[in-house]
Amino acid sequence: MGTAKTIGLLTGGGDSPGINAALRAIVHRALTESAEVVGFYDGWRGLVEDEGRNLGPSDVSGILHVGGTMLGTSRTNPFRKVTEGEEVRWEPTDMVESIKETWHRRGLDSLIAIGGDDTLGVAHRLTRYGLSTLGIPQTIDNDIAGTDYSIGFHSALVTVTDALDKLHTTAHAHHRLLILEVMGRDSGWIALLGGLAGGADVLLVPENSFSVDSVEQKIKHRLQQGKRFSIVVIAEGAKPQELQGRQVSRGEVDAFGHVQLGGIGYWLADQLKQRETLEMTPRVTVLAYLQRGGVATPFDRLLATRFGVAAVEFASEGMTDVMTGLQGTQVVPVPLASALAGTPKPLDPELLRVARSIGLS
Amino acid sequence: MGTAKTIGLLTGGGDSPGINAALRAIVHRALTESAEVVGFYDGWRGLVEDEGRNLGPSDVSGILHVGGTMLGTSRTNPFRKVTEGEEVRWEPTDMVESIKETWHRRGLDSLIAIGGDDTLGVAHRLTRYGLSTLGIPQTIDNDIAGTDYSIGFHSALVTVTDALDKLHTTAHAHHRLLILEVMGRDSGWIALLGGLAGGADVLLVPENSFSVDSVEQKIKHRLQQGKRFSIVVIAEGAKPQELQGRQVSRGEVDAFGHVQLGGIGYWLADQLKQRETLEMTPRVTVLAYLQRGGVATPFDRLLATRFGVAAVEFASEGMTDVMTGLQGTQVVPVPLASALAGTPKPLDPELLRVARSIGLS
Amino acid sequence: MGTAKTIGLLTGGGDSPGINAALRAIVHRALTESAEVVGFYDGWRGLVEDEGRNLGPSDVSGILHVGGTMLGTSRTNPFRKVTEGEEVRWEPTDMVESIKETWHRRGLDSLIAIGGDDTLGVAHRLTRYGLSTLGIPQTIDNDIAGTDYSIGFHSALVTVTDALDKLHTTAHAHHRLLILEVMGRDSGWIALLGGLAGGADVLLVPENSFSVDSVEQKIKHRLQQGKRFSIVVIAEGAKPQELQGRQVSRGEVDAFGHVQLGGIGYWLADQLKQRETLEMTPRVTVLAYLQRGGVATPFDRLLATRFGVAAVEFASEGMTDVMTGLQGTQVVPVPLASALAGTPKPLDPELLRVARSIGLS
Amino acid sequence: MGTAKTIGLLTGGGDSPGINAALRAIVHRALTESAEVVGFYDGWRGLVEDEGRNLGPSDVSGILHVGGTMLGTSRTNPFRKVTEGEEVRWEPTDMVESIKETWHRRGLDSLIAIGGDDTLGVAHRLTRYGLSTLGIPQTIDNDIAGTDYSIGFHSALVTVTDALDKLHTTAHAHHRLLILEVMGRDSGWIALLGGLAGGADVLLVPENSFSVDSVEQKIKHRLQQGKRFSIVVIAEGAKPQELQGRQVSRGEVDAFGHVQLGGIGYWLADQLKQRETLEMTPRVTVLAYLQRGGVATPFDRLLATRFGVAAVEFASEGMTDVMTGLQGTQVVPVPLASALAGTPKPLDPELLRVARSIGLS
Repeated sequence: MGTAKTIGLLTGGGDSPGINAALRAIVHRALTESAEVVGFYDGWRGLVEDEGRNLGPSDVSGILHVGGTMLGTSRTNPFRKVTEGEEVRWEPTDMVESIKETWHRRGLDSLIAIGGDDTLGVAHRLTRYGLSTLGIPQTIDNDIAGTDYSIGFHSALVTVTDALDKLHTTAHAHHRLLILEVMGRDSGWIALLGGLAGGADVLLVPENSFSVDSVEQKIKHRLQQGKRFSIVVIAEGAKPQELQGRQVSRGEVDAFGHVQLGGIGYWLADQLKQRETLEMTPRVTVLAYLQRGGVATPFDRLLATRFGVAAVEFASEGMTDVMTGLQGTQVVPVPLASALAGTPKPLDPELLRVARSIGLS
Repeated sequence: MGTAKTIGLLTGGGDSPGINAALRAIVHRALTESAEVVGFYDGWRGLVEDEGRNLGPSDVSGILHVGGTMLGTSRTNPFRKVTEGEEVRWEPTDMVESIKETWHRRGLDSLIAIGGDDTLGVAHRLTRYGLSTLGIPQTIDNDIAGTDYSIGFHSALVTVTDALDKLHTTAHAHHRLLILEVMGRDSGWIALLGGLAGGADVLLVPENSFSVDSVEQKIKHRLQQGKRFSIVVIAEGAKPQELQGRQVSRGEVDAFGHVQLGGIGYWLADQLKQRETLEMTPRVTVLAYLQRGGVATPFDRLLATRFGVAAVEFASEGMTDVMTGLQGTQVVPVPLASALAGTPKPLDPELLRVARSIGLS
Repeated sequence: MGTAKTIGLLTGGGDSPGINAALRAIVHRALTESAEVVGFYDGWRGLVEDEGRNLGPSDVSGILHVGGTMLGTSRTNPFRKVTEGEEVRWEPTDMVESIKETWHRRGLDSLIAIGGDDTLGVAHRLTRYGLSTLGIPQTIDNDIAGTDYSIGFHSALVTVTDALDKLHTTAHAHHRLLILEVMGRDSGWIALLGGLAGGADVLLVPENSFSVDSVEQKIKHRLQQGKRFSIVVIAEGAKPQELQGRQVSRGEVDAFGHVQLGGIGYWLADQLKQRETLEMTPRVTVLAYLQRGGVATPFDRLLATRFGVAAVEFASEGMTDVMTGLQGTQVVPVPLASALAGTPKPLDPELLRVARSIGLS
Repeated sequence: MGTAKTIGLLTGGGDSPGINAALRAIVHRALTESAEVVGFYDGWRGLVEDEGRNLGPSDVSGILHVGGTMLGTSRTNPFRKVTEGEEVRWEPTDMVESIKETWHRRGLDSLIAIGGDDTLGVAHRLTRYGLSTLGIPQTIDNDIAGTDYSIGFHSALVTVTDALDKLHTTAHAHHRLLILEVMGRDSGWIALLGGLAGGADVLLVPENSFSVDSVEQKIKHRLQQGKRFSIVVIAEGAKPQELQGRQVSRGEVDAFGHVQLGGIGYWLADQLKQRETLEMTPRVTVLAYLQRGGVATPFDRLLATRFGVAAVEFASEGMTDVMTGLQGTQVVPVPLASALAGTPKPLDPELLRVARSIGLS
């Protein structure tokens, strides 16, 4: 492998549990092949402004299970989106030049960027400037193509199913109609798998618009069967047909002239409250950022550890413009171009079918 | 203790973790003195309509840690509130007569009612009709006087502090301003003790009105100290001075002509978003019914077990019109009249002082 | 699919979290194609003695996340193992005849058996008697071939990593040498993946014998690096070279003439205590049956739900002598013969390599 | 309050969850009265060797819920125990002189020592040398007199009840006899309150010796009632009458000439295995150091926060030779002499009575 390498490292995008486990694995794996690791702070900002430091084993001690990212993150993007008609282009800003300067000043051989589609997109575009970059996909939304799962998704599921377990006991005791709003502006992975694992009664995802009528029907059907409570899981991006399939956005004036301070969960509750046949006042829980936080599950720690080890090894083998992907039980290199082209990854139709086959939809 | 007694049992009000532990203890304790226990379904409704059944050890097996209540609950109230000027009276409805019939048909010697102030109030008023009733206080709000703690409060605190632990990791990684709305329409016990235990940065309770300005100041002060994130805990009943100290009610038109679909958490977020100096978009999590659900903590299981045992013993000793109360480490009988007169129990001023003394308020 | 089918259902072997989720999915899935489900109690015993009952949705309400199995389990085996020289055969006992009688009395079309290799082996052998059986693999050991994961494994990992998280805080504060004994008489899956996810420092699995000397060396190496604590994860079936690669069995007289009341964890602690260079008294935690208990993870609930749905569908399609297997993201039918032939499934060598590549082994 | 004070701070003894919350509160509370805080490492060793540093808010950020102690701990004791006949005396070693030197070099006004009876004993004895010391009681054993609860006890209870919840599901499914060995060499607080909260069937504490016969009887009694599983909670220091009320010590030769590698849990399992009437092979779980680790409960964080605030205030008011004590809902100063004289605090007889009254003993 020749002389020792220097690997840059940063984390971008909305954070999720498991990132720290990847950082730890990268540092440990680099150590066994005598590579240096430089961690940059707050995503691309740290690389642009050259704020970072060398990371050794003691820096990553005790972080394995801790949520968040010890390197911080930001929304800084060295490229600017340009839309012309149908076409979308990304143009470099001055920050790209700064990144190249940091790269040479630090003597980087490779850069590992851990993040969602934005972060991975930047990593991909930087390769055009002669920089060797690798990606590790992390997002609780699980919508990155080329990998069965991204870091953080299974930990977010735990938050959702824990919430559903709690709501079940009180819904049952109290004959309640409870609505749980979960993350997912464009993607229903969290809602679908969380709702399935947590035993929701109604499931609403952004991929398929829904009508308030059909929700009402399902709850009434349950009442007729003697089930005096219902739990609805709704993704924040679910689209009611009553709003012509638009999303309900917080802070905007909605179709009824209301300023919408709460999101779709409250909107649905408001609609259902007016259906007198239900005889239940709906109550709303909004998990929001809870889903990004907390202790990473074993699944995510293992995935993150494997991704971290693989990223260092891919770098050692001279790969660039790829991300780590879990395919079945194997971790493989996935070209960033193809991963980005397939993102957002559609919902697994088989899981939708399974949900419907047991009466959930 | 003479011939075997028959004890009626019901659970009322909003449920909370730990009720089942009390039911289990009552059944086991009754067994050791050969008393019968009849459990009625869905609060006072079960007693009114004589829907219930005998409970033995096998009925309460495996429920010790399960949230909710195996007997169900409802808002049925055999008394009707009558307000004349300043005065509030409770008048019996026909249901009281039905309760007396059930009582004699079942041969009840005592009734143990587990619930909040409404439930305990009914138990108290029924004693005027010659019925021997005892209460066990349960409410996550912890606002019943005469007892240091009610069943469920410490379990609700776990939900709040777990949420704060999760929000901390992501707030820190992401430099976020996060708002956590917790239960407490009139009482700040959950917000104060939960916020203190979870390390909130700003704490807003119903007992003291707040101004958006002062919240903004605290967050700015933290920013100046280099703390790039803040977490606000706000009770649902917190009262902004900007609204002349009114509560923000869901579904109502607010002072700005907006229909308020989300609650005070969203209102505060909306206000703070307009303060440009903060440079952070606030995000809201609403726990709502999560706080009623889930596994009871050891503290609540022990409290519930002790309350259950004591209630059976108080009944055996011929007591009536009392509830179980924790005072220090002792469980004592507390006259229902005095407990109800002191309810809602004010916030412990010493805990408020402790919170302020470490910079939290 | 013609006339409605009747599906028998039983659970066998050591239990694990997630079984109830499979039972629930089977009942719900059968409902949507109008099939009847008969649940038999306590594994094969219930089928032999015809103890069981029809299961409908209300029977499986509220069990989704509950550990254990609502049907119970037992070690009853209708076949008897016969060993002749190198060869092992299974001979039918009278119980097979009883099973056939139950089968016809109940009008079963198929039987779904949820269990480990013993249970699946019986299901396989019964097909020779004209009975249509299907298997669902569940075992915390994850040693059944033909499926990437079995129900229960990921939930057991949570117990192990939770334990390691707890041990880390106190080991670090207290400069302790802590030993965690986990399940795995012949299989190191729990130890390897749990130790990797939980950040163990030394990892001992049944597949590779170990020497006390090498354990001592690793701990001393850590001490020299300033790491004043170490955590050893050891599978109950790990084999010390000092005992010629034999397992330490509880209750037996060991090589040193000691009655071995505790298992390998205590044996290792006793050996390390005598190594004065370590200057630390080792302390042992034995998880044992904790690993079988508790709430199923989302991963296990989803897997169990998918396995349950697939098993009903495989039965409807007339399949027999197969089990459900997870291969990548797909659930597929796996011939029981080939699954059993490959069991116990060897440890994933890639995961062993990953562990070693970051200094853990 | 005159000129700014300097407060020394250290943590001693076996650690427990909640210590970090106390450290955080002390630093924050000191800040609001402009006092300096010097944290010393590894208990008394840090004070003896003057290893420590000033602590500010950023040093205690993010530690509120983290188990262990950020200052570390050790068993260093500056006094030597001297036993003459019945009498026990503590003689100063040279370390006391070193402590005085550190004290004057650092300009300490007070020292807050967080620990168990050993640590508090040292704090008390140091006052004879003109040093102003204050104590904060922390021990999972809850055996320090003068306070209803010590920091860490309620967190340890969570570990025990979580374990019992897990064991229940598998014991029930599998008809098992499970033994859970918990901490408590001389004190049964953890076993009693944990067993009561977790629904154990048999409870064995150091305070009362037990006979294997009586354990067997209880399990048989349960079998006769159709309860096909039993869970025994046994404190590590429980004393079998069969060994003349001696404790079973790990690593020692027991009464039967066996080297006892596992502890009392295994001893009991071995004895019960020989009782053929039980028809169940007992299985042992040993929690050991798990009970010291993990996330502090809200109860412990609140207690620790209040103790930390009170200790700084007691110091400001010029108090010395006292510890913080929780009495009812109040935190009060308790003379160390009286707290130590009453330690170990006997089990609450009322809780023992409650346990017996519901059939547990």
